[in-house]
Amino acid sequence: MNPRIQCLRNQLNSLEIEGMIVSDPINIKYLTDIEAEGELLITRKENVFLTDSRYLEEVNSMLTIDSEIIVWDKRGMIREDYENYFLFCERVGFEEGYVTYKKYKQIMELYKINELVETEGIIEKQRRIKDEDEIENIKKACEITDNCFTFLKSYIKRGMTEREIAYKIEQYFMEHGANGLAFNPIVASGPHSSMPHAVPTDRKIEDGDIITLDLGCKYKGYCSDMTRTIFIGKLDDTIKSAYDLVLRVQEQALLCIRDGANIKNITKNAEQELKINRFDLVHALGHGVGLDIHEKPVLTSKYDYLLKENMVIAVEPGIYVPKSFGIRIEDTVLVTKNGCIKLTNSTKNYTIIP
Amino acid sequence: MNPRIQCLRNQLNSLEIEGMIVSDPINIKYLTDIEAEGELLITRKENVFLTDSRYLEEVNSMLTIDSEIIVWDKRGMIREDYENYFLFCERVGFEEGYVTYKKYKQIMELYKINELVETEGIIEKQRRIKDEDEIENIKKACEITDNCFTFLKSYIKRGMTEREIAYKIEQYFMEHGANGLAFNPIVASGPHSSMPHAVPTDRKIEDGDIITLDLGCKYKGYCSDMTRTIFIGKLDDTIKSAYDLVLRVQEQALLCIRDGANIKNITKNAEQELKINRFDLVHALGHGVGLDIHEKPVLTSKYDYLLKENMVIAVEPGIYVPKSFGIRIEDTVLVTKNGCIKLTNSTKNYTIIP
Repeated sequence: MNPRIQCLRNQLNSLEIEGMIVSDPINIKYLTDIEAEGELLITRKENVFLTDSRYLEEVNSMLTIDSEIIVWDKRGMIREDYENYFLFCERVGFEEGYVTYKKYKQIMELYKINELVETEGIIEKQRRIKDEDEIENIKKACEITDNCFTFLKSYIKRGMTEREIAYKIEQYFMEHGANGLAFNPIVASGPHSSMPHAVPTDRKIEDGDIITLDLGCKYKGYCSDMTRTIFIGKLDDTIKSAYDLVLRVQEQALLCIRDGANIKNITKNAEQELKINRFDLVHALGHGVGLDIHEKPVLTSKYDYLLKENMVIAVEPGIYVPKSFGIRIEDTVLVTKNGCIKLTNSTKNYTIIP
Repeated sequence: MNPRIQCLRNQLNSLEIEGMIVSDPINIKYLTDIEAEGELLITRKENVFLTDSRYLEEVNSMLTIDSEIIVWDKRGMIREDYENYFLFCERVGFEEGYVTYKKYKQIMELYKINELVETEGIIEKQRRIKDEDEIENIKKACEITDNCFTFLKSYIKRGMTEREIAYKIEQYFMEHGANGLAFNPIVASGPHSSMPHAVPTDRKIEDGDIITLDLGCKYKGYCSDMTRTIFIGKLDDTIKSAYDLVLRVQEQALLCIRDGANIKNITKNAEQELKINRFDLVHALGHGVGLDIHEKPVLTSKYDYLLKENMVIAVEPGIYVPKSFGIRIEDTVLVTKNGCIKLTNSTKNYTIIP
């Protein structure tokens, strides 16, 4: 059987949950490789994908006997069919963090389940540890991202708008083997760089600007995430020392990352180093990366949790001075037994566009 | 006060709901123009946007006194602050179709609300009727889409892949004033055209192909939606009569659309016309278009509902013969007192790429 579904079944067993309704399309893709609207039912004996006629042909054409997934068209189903799926189950799991309150009530009504239980991100937790194929895909996405940054260093010129550059990033990704964006690229120039999630505008790049470039693409559904902060024409001493600080904080965090390292401690160290220099970490230090751009675990100082081998995480400290400037540096890394391997490898030396 | 929020308040009043927590970012944009993560609280006296430090500067910079919205940073808030918002309210509304089951429980816990009540798409229902500004934005998005189709007619050549064409559509939109895609374009060629939601592949366009092009962009957040089916080199008689059928069904539906027309009847007519010709309508006949690509109302024969002036809807009948071919034709139209105005105006004559 499909090893990912088998692993989920084992976990459900140990929680005395006898079935599960999987609704989140990313979890469905993870478990089955299916990318279509529908629901995956993990019943006692079978794995059933309920979809509608729009997707029937596509889904059937991508599945093999080895997939061990039965596909049904909802249109042909009657109420009894739904009730039969979990007929002898006491407890059936659902994704309380994905399913809306309305859908929750509909599921209760439709499947007539005795007890619909919260599974607390059971699949998301399984997804934290990446297998070989997943790591290969993320590596590839990171490689395309590195190449894009190399391209940007010679492409970006004074007078271009943030929006133009953002669009060029998308174009580069699509023309160099990515299957999509991991997120809309951030190109935040001059004072805009002080906004961590700035949306690209028609502001033109000027001499003396700082530009935060936060970019990532998807390869076979898997994401990359990298940020570099670059400079136009010059780099004055105040900014230089701020840049050095962010880089130091990031490199120190990367040095601490390995199997068994505690997220809480890593984040506290980063926060303290910034605090000494009178800055706050206004967002998380980082996050898991995989099929989703933001996965578990989240790197915050409130989270007492040990990293494990084969997690992939993005580490992204930043400092932001409202209406003035901001600097962020981010890499995607693979957690190993004794440390981490950087999957994004673009230079973090001062990049000054002449 | 902001007229959209005022209208919502009036509706809540008439339902004896004394406040509302708005979580869906599209509803928040509709009511406030804010595009940032956070929650909008409609309390007895105020409109409060709760966000975090990442978005604080952006949000404050776009609001004016006339917006009548108070912005708070969640980080500075304590439990009591949350409890105070709806302190003297009996019934507070929430978006049961957007809020997850987990979030629902968190809201109950955090705000200590007496009765958290389902609002049954109260804001989505308000959004069905578009105001002048909204219609202007949709018109503009449709105009860019028409121009893109004109461009595609001379751009598409044998040997190109579906993916290349899909990418070119994105590029065209971005370079011609769109602010984003309304959805990922569908370019479904040859046998792929039989899949209503086919994802563009590396299949190359060949002589004799049918290509379904389903495309739409966003302008100031507002969507367009149009489908045309075109032919490479030739158009044989079987396909021609199928095309004529779909076009006839679509034109008949458009003729019936006006203020007061019943969705149920319009859809039934379309279904019957297809049925006589041994085809089924495998998806809805159409849907509302606005800030979301799929809005209320949905055009199905189960929905006994009267269209109203200033609704904008996409009408998209299609026929699909698995593994063989498919044809779909779609326009975005504005419902008027006595009929409808087509907002997409690309030719529906046979388009045969020589």
